[in-house]
Amino acid sequence: MRVYLDNNATTIVDPKVFAQMEPYFVQMYGNPNSLHDFGSETHPALRKAMDQLYCGLNADDKDDIVITSCATESNNWVLKGVYYDHILGKDKDHIITSEVEHPAIISTCKFLETLGVKVTYLPVNEKGIIETHTLKNFITEKTALVTIMWANNETGMLFPIEEISKICKETGVLFHSDAVQAVGKIPIDLKKLDIDFLSFSAHKFHGPKGIGGLYIKDSQPLTPLFHGGEHMGGRRSGTLDVPGIIGMGEALELAVHNLDFENNNVRKLRDKLEDEVLKLDDVFVVGSRDERTPNTILVSVKGIEGEAMLWDLNKNGIAASTGSACASEDLESNPVMEAIGAEADLAHTALRLSLSRFTTQEEIDYTVVILNDAVKRLRAISSTYSYAPDWHDSKL
Amino acid sequence: MRVYLDNNATTIVDPKVFAQMEPYFVQMYGNPNSLHDFGSETHPALRKAMDQLYCGLNADDKDDIVITSCATESNNWVLKGVYYDHILGKDKDHIITSEVEHPAIISTCKFLETLGVKVTYLPVNEKGIIETHTLKNFITEKTALVTIMWANNETGMLFPIEEISKICKETGVLFHSDAVQAVGKIPIDLKKLDIDFLSFSAHKFHGPKGIGGLYIKDSQPLTPLFHGGEHMGGRRSGTLDVPGIIGMGEALELAVHNLDFENNNVRKLRDKLEDEVLKLDDVFVVGSRDERTPNTILVSVKGIEGEAMLWDLNKNGIAASTGSACASEDLESNPVMEAIGAEADLAHTALRLSLSRFTTQEEIDYTVVILNDAVKRLRAISSTYSYAPDWHDSKL
Repeated sequence: MRVYLDNNATTIVDPKVFAQMEPYFVQMYGNPNSLHDFGSETHPALRKAMDQLYCGLNADDKDDIVITSCATESNNWVLKGVYYDHILGKDKDHIITSEVEHPAIISTCKFLETLGVKVTYLPVNEKGIIETHTLKNFITEKTALVTIMWANNETGMLFPIEEISKICKETGVLFHSDAVQAVGKIPIDLKKLDIDFLSFSAHKFHGPKGIGGLYIKDSQPLTPLFHGGEHMGGRRSGTLDVPGIIGMGEALELAVHNLDFENNNVRKLRDKLEDEVLKLDDVFVVGSRDERTPNTILVSVKGIEGEAMLWDLNKNGIAASTGSACASEDLESNPVMEAIGAEADLAHTALRLSLSRFTTQEEIDYTVVILNDAVKRLRAISSTYSYAPDWHDSKL
Repeated sequence: MRVYLDNNATTIVDPKVFAQMEPYFVQMYGNPNSLHDFGSETHPALRKAMDQLYCGLNADDKDDIVITSCATESNNWVLKGVYYDHILGKDKDHIITSEVEHPAIISTCKFLETLGVKVTYLPVNEKGIIETHTLKNFITEKTALVTIMWANNETGMLFPIEEISKICKETGVLFHSDAVQAVGKIPIDLKKLDIDFLSFSAHKFHGPKGIGGLYIKDSQPLTPLFHGGEHMGGRRSGTLDVPGIIGMGEALELAVHNLDFENNNVRKLRDKLEDEVLKLDDVFVVGSRDERTPNTILVSVKGIEGEAMLWDLNKNGIAASTGSACASEDLESNPVMEAIGAEADLAHTALRLSLSRFTTQEEIDYTVVILNDAVKRLRAISSTYSYAPDWHDSKL
């Protein structure tokens, strides 16, 4: 059996999504900006896709949703755009983020620091999220932007976005959220929230890779990352990736349509898996279930290197991820385990299991069996874990 | 009959290319950076694609080919990267380009000018290309970069890239070429030429949209446009667009395999079309045939607005483009007709016909008939053109 439990890294393209995209490679391949039927025959599907994106995020008509190639582009664009619009030669010099953001945010902040920008990396609590009162303490009149993720890629922990957005609104600071792990998993209503910029990526919600977006409230100005022609109203140049956009629209509509399923059925499977995992001795799961996206578990299995666990699972057809960048080529990882102040050991023993609406009960049952066997086998050969009863006795 | 003669804007995805991509949406969807089989099962096809790119450009193993989302990204990356690496806080302050570059270059240069960079826009001759002696006159010790396109998108005119690269090498100036209209149409041999950076885009040579690349000679440093994780060796972050990369590799291999066909069969069809066009009175084609990419004609048809001509052709199933940005949504256009010093009228009467290896003899024959009819009809109602014999007589 093959079981894919790495949906926070990327997801299967929903076959219904691919069916919508397929005609736009070989049959309807025109450039939508061209003045002929080969171009304009793509317009109905593109309009539908844009409608699906506006509906899926509940964006207002006066807001912009600009197509990008991925959330990494969107994140780079916002931070560098704000730098040019509000910091370079202007009166602001400060950006606030968190210690546990995706590398696309952290690395861009580090780059902006080389240009003289002051960056505050907010610490997180033992659950891996920032506490909003800490945010208040750091906002000054020099703060141009607060950028805080909506949900953490490793732990699935949801950040207090509504509170953060209110604080930013009150203090007149722009607010960006990297919502790549939230869009398609929890309800997003951008008419209700004061979020200036929001990044998302289709391949996290069963759309294709290579396409993402940036929501811009009230269509406010933002210096482009891609200068060029007048594509996307001059905001982002480059020939439109027609099948990608169509796929992203369809994927978001399907994800929103399946939100109840995600928050009931996927959550139940996740909880069932988590229940079984917690029956093991000496395991630790980050954050409580209702504070997380419904599909994610980050568990530390004492005495077992995350990489060794991945290897054992993979041998048996199960795909997962570690919580430690050093044990993975997967750059979605970040040192969140260290940031939340857990024992150093934890950073090496983390295992991330992330489900999707394509995950089945049978797959979870199989995973529980394999995981139990793997833990027994790996702890038996672990140099840092002992099954000796006296160790257990000493805890009593 | 439907005839697609707008291949300089975008191309049909070769069905053989799509066949290679298709399994990587719904079947093999893993993230290549993940440590499990869902990820690693994409590696053979990705390795093959990278080999196809290196072979197609004849790049050296010590050079980098970095995957981007399009040539617009590659162009922005080079210009802004060179700004950070060699201009900001360094001893250079000058970039040289031409008047007829793609908007992705021109707009980025305009943006860099707002940051204090001095930009020289080299004029072009009556054929629409720069003369290399003009380049020599403008290079100073403050010049950081020369960026000149390999082939013009409107005229198809080939620039003297070998000469330019030699001048840059001799003077120690970095050289970038936007080769988006050259790659796949003419032989490219990067081992033989001193080109530091070269941009290309898959959808111009029968690959998918939303994927492109930047060649970097000797893997020299270049500040990223996308900061983030360690994808592409830290050069360009964002989850790899697996089907896109596979499609681009296959497309380049097929294009190179078809170079003889392009330069013989496609060229013959183009020449046949051009012969027929030149039989019309008062038409003017930019540049001689052997100085152009083998697929392109930019023709001015006196007295007929380019947009009116497009409309007439489109009614009859033929897709083309104009040579004037004001008469097209197509942002591939640029005011090249004005730059080459032609009569102002020309900028409004230009028609670009661009073929591909999918263009047939039958399609060209049909186009000749329709084009002749369109010219007769539109000139008959033209306010700026007279069929009156005395006008012709006055020329004799």
